[in-house]
Amino acid sequence: RAMLVRASSTGAGSSLLDPLDTFPRRHHGRMNDAEVAAMLEVLNVQSVDQLMNESIPAELRATQPLELPEGVSETQALAEVKALAAQNQVKESLIGMGYYGTVTPPVILRNIVENPNWYTPYTPYQAEISQGRMESLVNFQQMVSDLTGLPVANASLLDEGTAAAEAMAMAFSAGRGKKRDFFVDRNVWPQTLAVLETRAKPLGINIKIGDVSTFDFAGHSLFGGIYQYPDARGIACGNISHFVEATQASNGLAIVATDLLACSVLKPPGEFGADIVLGNSQRFGVPLGYGGPHAAFFAVRDKLARKMPGRLIGVTRDSAGKPAFRLTLQTREQHIRREKATSNICTAQALLANVAAMYAVYHGPAGLRSIASRVHAMAAAFAAGVAADGKATSVSVRDAETQAFFDTVLVRFDSPAEALASANAALAADINVRVVDDVTLGVAFDETCTEATLAALLPAFGSRLTPRDALAQAELDAIPQAALKRESKFLTHAVFNRFHTEHELLRYMNRLQSSDIGLQNSMIPLGSCTMKLNATAEMIPVTLPGISAIHPFAPLNQVPGYAALLKEFEAQLCAITGFSAFSLQPNSGAAGEYAGLYAIRAYHEARGETHRNVCLIPDSAHGTNPASAAMSGMKVVAIKTSATGEVDLEDAAAKIAKHGEKLGALMVTYPSTYGVFEAGIKELCAMVKEAGGRVYMDGANMNAQVGLMRPTDLGADVLHLNLHKTMTIPHGGGGPGMGPIGVVDDLVPFLPSHPLVDNGTDAESAIGPVASAPWSSASILPISYMYIRLMGSEGLTNATQRAILHANYMAARLEPEYKVLFSNEAGRVAHEFIVDLRPLTKATGVEAGDVAKRLQDFGFHAPTMSWPVAGTIMIEPTESETKEEMDRYIDSLLAIRSEIADIEAGRISIEDSPLRNAPHTADVVTASEWNRAYSREQAAFPLPWVRQRKFWPKVGRVDDVFGDRNLVCTCPPMEDYVEADE
Amino acid sequence: RAMLVRASSTGAGSSLLDPLDTFPRRHHGRMNDAEVAAMLEVLNVQSVDQLMNESIPAELRATQPLELPEGVSETQALAEVKALAAQNQVKESLIGMGYYGTVTPPVILRNIVENPNWYTPYTPYQAEISQGRMESLVNFQQMVSDLTGLPVANASLLDEGTAAAEAMAMAFSAGRGKKRDFFVDRNVWPQTLAVLETRAKPLGINIKIGDVSTFDFAGHSLFGGIYQYPDARGIACGNISHFVEATQASNGLAIVATDLLACSVLKPPGEFGADIVLGNSQRFGVPLGYGGPHAAFFAVRDKLARKMPGRLIGVTRDSAGKPAFRLTLQTREQHIRREKATSNICTAQALLANVAAMYAVYHGPAGLRSIASRVHAMAAAFAAGVAADGKATSVSVRDAETQAFFDTVLVRFDSPAEALASANAALAADINVRVVDDVTLGVAFDETCTEATLAALLPAFGSRLTPRDALAQAELDAIPQAALKRESKFLTHAVFNRFHTEHELLRYMNRLQSSDIGLQNSMIPLGSCTMKLNATAEMIPVTLPGISAIHPFAPLNQVPGYAALLKEFEAQLCAITGFSAFSLQPNSGAAGEYAGLYAIRAYHEARGETHRNVCLIPDSAHGTNPASAAMSGMKVVAIKTSATGEVDLEDAAAKIAKHGEKLGALMVTYPSTYGVFEAGIKELCAMVKEAGGRVYMDGANMNAQVGLMRPTDLGADVLHLNLHKTMTIPHGGGGPGMGPIGVVDDLVPFLPSHPLVDNGTDAESAIGPVASAPWSSASILPISYMYIRLMGSEGLTNATQRAILHANYMAARLEPEYKVLFSNEAGRVAHEFIVDLRPLTKATGVEAGDVAKRLQDFGFHAPTMSWPVAGTIMIEPTESETKEEMDRYIDSLLAIRSEIADIEAGRISIEDSPLRNAPHTADVVTASEWNRAYSREQAAFPLPWVRQRKFWPKVGRVDDVFGDRNLVCTCPPMEDYVEADE
Repeated sequence: RAMLVRASSTGAGSSLLDPLDTFPRRHHGRMNDAEVAAMLEVLNVQSVDQLMNESIPAELRATQPLELPEGVSETQALAEVKALAAQNQVKESLIGMGYYGTVTPPVILRNIVENPNWYTPYTPYQAEISQGRMESLVNFQQMVSDLTGLPVANASLLDEGTAAAEAMAMAFSAGRGKKRDFFVDRNVWPQTLAVLETRAKPLGINIKIGDVSTFDFAGHSLFGGIYQYPDARGIACGNISHFVEATQASNGLAIVATDLLACSVLKPPGEFGADIVLGNSQRFGVPLGYGGPHAAFFAVRDKLARKMPGRLIGVTRDSAGKPAFRLTLQTREQHIRREKATSNICTAQALLANVAAMYAVYHGPAGLRSIASRVHAMAAAFAAGVAADGKATSVSVRDAETQAFFDTVLVRFDSPAEALASANAALAADINVRVVDDVTLGVAFDETCTEATLAALLPAFGSRLTPRDALAQAELDAIPQAALKRESKFLTHAVFNRFHTEHELLRYMNRLQSSDIGLQNSMIPLGSCTMKLNATAEMIPVTLPGISAIHPFAPLNQVPGYAALLKEFEAQLCAITGFSAFSLQPNSGAAGEYAGLYAIRAYHEARGETHRNVCLIPDSAHGTNPASAAMSGMKVVAIKTSATGEVDLEDAAAKIAKHGEKLGALMVTYPSTYGVFEAGIKELCAMVKEAGGRVYMDGANMNAQVGLMRPTDLGADVLHLNLHKTMTIPHGGGGPGMGPIGVVDDLVPFLPSHPLVDNGTDAESAIGPVASAPWSSASILPISYMYIRLMGSEGLTNATQRAILHANYMAARLEPEYKVLFSNEAGRVAHEFIVDLRPLTKATGVEAGDVAKRLQDFGFHAPTMSWPVAGTIMIEPTESETKEEMDRYIDSLLAIRSEIADIEAGRISIEDSPLRNAPHTADVVTASEWNRAYSREQAAFPLPWVRQRKFWPKVGRVDDVFGDRNLVCTCPPMEDYVEADE
Repeated sequence: RAMLVRASSTGAGSSLLDPLDTFPRRHHGRMNDAEVAAMLEVLNVQSVDQLMNESIPAELRATQPLELPEGVSETQALAEVKALAAQNQVKESLIGMGYYGTVTPPVILRNIVENPNWYTPYTPYQAEISQGRMESLVNFQQMVSDLTGLPVANASLLDEGTAAAEAMAMAFSAGRGKKRDFFVDRNVWPQTLAVLETRAKPLGINIKIGDVSTFDFAGHSLFGGIYQYPDARGIACGNISHFVEATQASNGLAIVATDLLACSVLKPPGEFGADIVLGNSQRFGVPLGYGGPHAAFFAVRDKLARKMPGRLIGVTRDSAGKPAFRLTLQTREQHIRREKATSNICTAQALLANVAAMYAVYHGPAGLRSIASRVHAMAAAFAAGVAADGKATSVSVRDAETQAFFDTVLVRFDSPAEALASANAALAADINVRVVDDVTLGVAFDETCTEATLAALLPAFGSRLTPRDALAQAELDAIPQAALKRESKFLTHAVFNRFHTEHELLRYMNRLQSSDIGLQNSMIPLGSCTMKLNATAEMIPVTLPGISAIHPFAPLNQVPGYAALLKEFEAQLCAITGFSAFSLQPNSGAAGEYAGLYAIRAYHEARGETHRNVCLIPDSAHGTNPASAAMSGMKVVAIKTSATGEVDLEDAAAKIAKHGEKLGALMVTYPSTYGVFEAGIKELCAMVKEAGGRVYMDGANMNAQVGLMRPTDLGADVLHLNLHKTMTIPHGGGGPGMGPIGVVDDLVPFLPSHPLVDNGTDAESAIGPVASAPWSSASILPISYMYIRLMGSEGLTNATQRAILHANYMAARLEPEYKVLFSNEAGRVAHEFIVDLRPLTKATGVEAGDVAKRLQDFGFHAPTMSWPVAGTIMIEPTESETKEEMDRYIDSLLAIRSEIADIEAGRISIEDSPLRNAPHTADVVTASEWNRAYSREQAAFPLPWVRQRKFWPKVGRVDDVFGDRNLVCTCPPMEDYVEADE
């Protein structure tokens, strides 16, 4: 562990010479300052230690500090990561396979990817203060819809492989699970096939791999099939028609994976009648990032809209009748449907979808077509050059005269030696090509290629033609079959045709971002979601070329920096949690749940205990838990929660006894979703293990454990870490996130593998991949790595203490006026707490939603709404807020409480109250007409300090029912805006 | 010129293979699009060419295209500049001399330096929409005031050397020019001395260099003197008292140059009674940048406040009586006082002052003291280590027991060989030290030094001690003389004590920026100021380490990338203008004027024509012109402007004849400040030259010349280019800018030199330096270089055409309702035009200021106000605005015109009108009380589209008179804010 050395070269205690740009005081402040003292006083304790003792059962506390070095300075941590990044070789990677070089327009790079206004906001559940990024996500949906030729697209999925798996699951569900055969064309990406196989098995789906032209569609009972267009060979084939017709003829859903750029020149799959079209939007300006994060896309026919996985932004109207955006059809999501959900997806890749959408906004339809044509010209010139004069025995496009191709050319050689020679010659020019097999190389051209690329590649493949001569010889029409040419228009909406200069795009992005509340505005104390500081020093590595410009299937010897960083990061996570190993592949918390539970299933299976398929889950669990369990083929059995909010150990014992040998796993969150350190956790875990089950711990609340206790000490066998919660990856306005899983020794053999890259797992025992890329969103892992490196053992532990202190402080200050639902015997909560609004609702009619919307008038984002208990709000301040900021939040809630008191006292009716009419837009408060029962000032500036930091919600309260009933998920016509203006 | 090669490797015309991420269409849009056609139609011309022919006299047009290569793609230009940056060696530079390594907190780097919200705004002349950066600049002023111990500080100057020169000029003026001797202590920085000498000469000031302890103060007739503390040897000496007393005893002003960080531990100069204290705030988080830009500071005693050069932000009240910030005491500035001004300063380094201020806000007083103590500990340990065990024969701090030192240690060796060996040993460890003379080395420690620095340096200087052992031996008290210890508190204001976590600082910065209009909001059509796009690709190089982390006095062999870039950039400028050479040293347009005029003076002098000291300047000139002429020792003679706005050639001929052999120069702006291409320019220049004068062309309007004509063809001998106008360096909210000068062949020998770095000039003939660093703000030169590289010959020319098209389009659309003051015979304007409001003022009382403030309600920044003609506004749309944006601006002005018509028609009085009451804050429009003669909607949303992009001015109209009468230039007490809130 050469890197993890203390900053000071002597290591001998602190010195005047130690660096001063240390991080913990910037993250959570100093531990010994007046703020902490003031909070302790409110809590009536003498010290932070005393509070910890009162909050956490002594027997659960870690006895040793974290085995991590002390934190280093921001300068040093940045220097270390930059040095690692510099070890990675940035090549021109023409490997393709769903990942392509792309030019991120600098104005988008700086003003979205590197801008906290875009990367810090939360998922847009609070619609009125999230209109900016929802408008952008609707642009994304419109773009996907236009390019794929299907009417409804969602706001992104995690990656192409899992999107394909979601499509398969959706088709399976549409067939009501009666038919079990699923056709997969042999020319889909190998990683897509592998993810499909991983996901098919627990659901009992039979994957039928075949060639679309010869497959016996009629002879199978298909619920669906998937075809790739252009396919893994680079060929866009008229067979797509046959595939769609044959699949649909057997009453299955026809799923097509495609490439958005290709769709600007190829007739899109939707126009062939495909039911579902999906793929990766990465090449629309999103850096390769060694695999991610990128936004996968997913579009369906109208009739399937309400079954689509993932988030969907819809258009509705607000309280003034004006158009407004909101997350629509949420009732179909896992947090509502739990184990009956057909998907456990509960995030998206919003930040990256926004990048892709802005890329389309900036280029417009003609710009995209130009890029596609140029990419094709490169491929055509290369193919022509090699075919005319090269060493190759065959060139894919020459062999397939009746077929169209787009950006990819496969070249077949006489011998492995010749193939190797060409690959090496390319490499000598710093170009990675794809090694398809020992005599075949693939070259996928992209937007970043230049004439110099061809000038290097042609001779590497034995051609003496110049690029321009090769181009002159090329058949430039990509699509000789008229049937495959795109004739239809796309991106005709004004938004794709107005912002083509940098000033216009900059201002459009600036206008959108100013509609949204992010962490740059104010605290977002979302219970269970841990909206802590996303520090700049942590974010800087993400866009370093050595981190962002690497293809996920680049040869491992080109990425020693990544290898070292991933290894160190895994070691850091092991030190924090106590596990033996981590898989960094799961691309979200839900993906982690799936992978972890599936690993447990594989463990039982390896021991011949396939029957162990019951998963016990407390009824207080996040809805994703049962959804993930169901997807991994487990049967969900709920355990009751006692009146005090603790898992009912008696009920647990009874359920364990009842299911006996079928017991597979317990899935439990700690501290509990009710925000309490339950004393019985060790006993519960022990009971399950005693009975042969394994313990899956949901890491959503790890922010309250780090440094104070270890999941393994509590009894966990598997745990996923939400890096976007505990480990400071920003929420991106609704993604990305990551959910790596840690496991104890005997589960290590079952961690997910990858079909193309050796990720250190044992392919024999491993479950298959759960993501397309070996480390999925690898480029954001440095954020969490930096966090741990900067904080060090003491910093991380202090942060946890401070998170608990803050929650208890806020609870204590609110308690005189609000009911705090769960606390332990000492009256302490963990790192978050639930405020029960039901008594007030009963007394006054004021609902949790009213409080949430009213908070917007104070400039605040609401806490978590009605979860885990309906009619409540859950507050998690996190450690990185100051007392000053928390006091403003508290004062806002107390001011709201007094507005509720006005209703209680009959001074105002609920209908007339500022609560029910919240949020108040500038339009409303400045209108000549004002016939409210309260003043304009009370509406907009309910506390004195609000004026200085006023944030105006852009729309009034959105109409959820109208939005769900009238599904519109594409850009509203411009007239809507204009009308609304007038 | 290897770099200036076309992107395409064949160079043979356009090809499908050419890159598509080309820049001109992002900068000014496509030339052949529907927007252009629509504008041409309004102008009733067939083509852009026709419009150019009607706008520009044919005989002035360039006959050849620019000799520049075509523009390259954004990707290629960035790759080229990154490659150049990578050639520069980033060392740990402990050279000191006013420039120090510093840690820019990442949150400030990303959210100020790299954020268009901070770098694009204009100078805060429109106070109501500039409150954010003015609050930050007042923080800067407060910080400087606190640390220097003087009550009034300005909002920054260009650099330390010119600040010293400004202080000298101010003292000279305070002595009414009667006394001519100025004492300079021999231990000021050599570059400060050199700049003082350059500036002293034309004013007839005699610089008296001496040692403060031995100088015969009584024997000289001093108007002032300057002393450095700590001095160039690193010593902070009690002699400062003697200096102040002796200088003041001779009725001179005592000027002290100091170091802000040192002032956190040393008794500040103000407490010794200094009249003026100045220095460089660079080490407060501003990157070295190979010399700049940095914010110099300047503080004075109360009685001198109204004579202080530069910008001063003051506190006043707004129309609602609330505190508000504004630029104060502007009547003392050059644009008012013209040749009577004592300074030609008309910009500042606002962006960098804001960085320095935020650095202080983030660290607070204790943080600064910690940094200062650590830096001193490093120096003390080094000195102790070398003294105890090193090869040196003497160490500065050992020799001067009664003196304090701070960060700098001079080490004297027995022989040059030993000195060289130590310097080389340091260099081998990637550390630059200062070579003071052949036996003396200097080491200046800074915030970025670590224990590793000492561990490398101690052995390099022959000491075997470890850093910690050396530290243990050190006398850690920096200031053995109690008299030199700082006892007074500083940065006690709340703003320096609240925002010490990253979240708090991020939110504070975000809150401030949201108060200001920048180019990310809307167009800022400031006549003569050319607020064009500052493209992201142009900005990215500025913060590359190879550009930003280089000491200005680094050995030239370490910076081949800079050398190549500067050379290429100079060649680009020569190609555009026709000049033989450029000096990249002048740090602002005004500095360029000074340097250029002084070069002309030097030319005459070299020819024995010292008497040629008359400078002809049209009376329409920018006030800086006469101020610069006066400062360069010339006598200003005005030439009249004719009724049609052209220079009166007859009057010019008469003046030339009258002054005969005394004629030194003509100073003229082209196109004229009236926005017209005057036909007589060639004739005018020829007349001057004929009479033995030289022509200085003010390049403020070069945006209208580039590619269409060349200054040298018109007759210019010297020209300064405002890189922040024509060449896309952002205005930074009030600086930085740069004003390089180009000269014809026979003036080349007179370009400014530098005392420490060979900048290619001939020290014999050259005028001295006009800035502290050889290329002053070198790190922003890549912005302009990128612009030219990206645009290429055609792009630059098209941009100029488009700028002229835009101005003519706006003028034509406004003309039916407003009077456009000057145009040529064809009715065409140049790239900007003047709207005459005087007839409307006469008819209705509506003043230009009312129109300006009312524009804020539409979300727009006002055009240039009452310049060059009082009672008018001057509009320059620039090329990088779309028709859509210009139409919104035009529609706003037309809506305002109809509001004026309401007054004309007697429907509303001027006092009651929305014009006079503009701007309307949210506070006002949302107040319960509304007794205006117009509706709230008309106040806030005067046109339908305003709602979607509403920008709320944070304060009502500021009270200028109150502000000037009640001078407050430091942070208002917090109660002011609170009261205002309530």
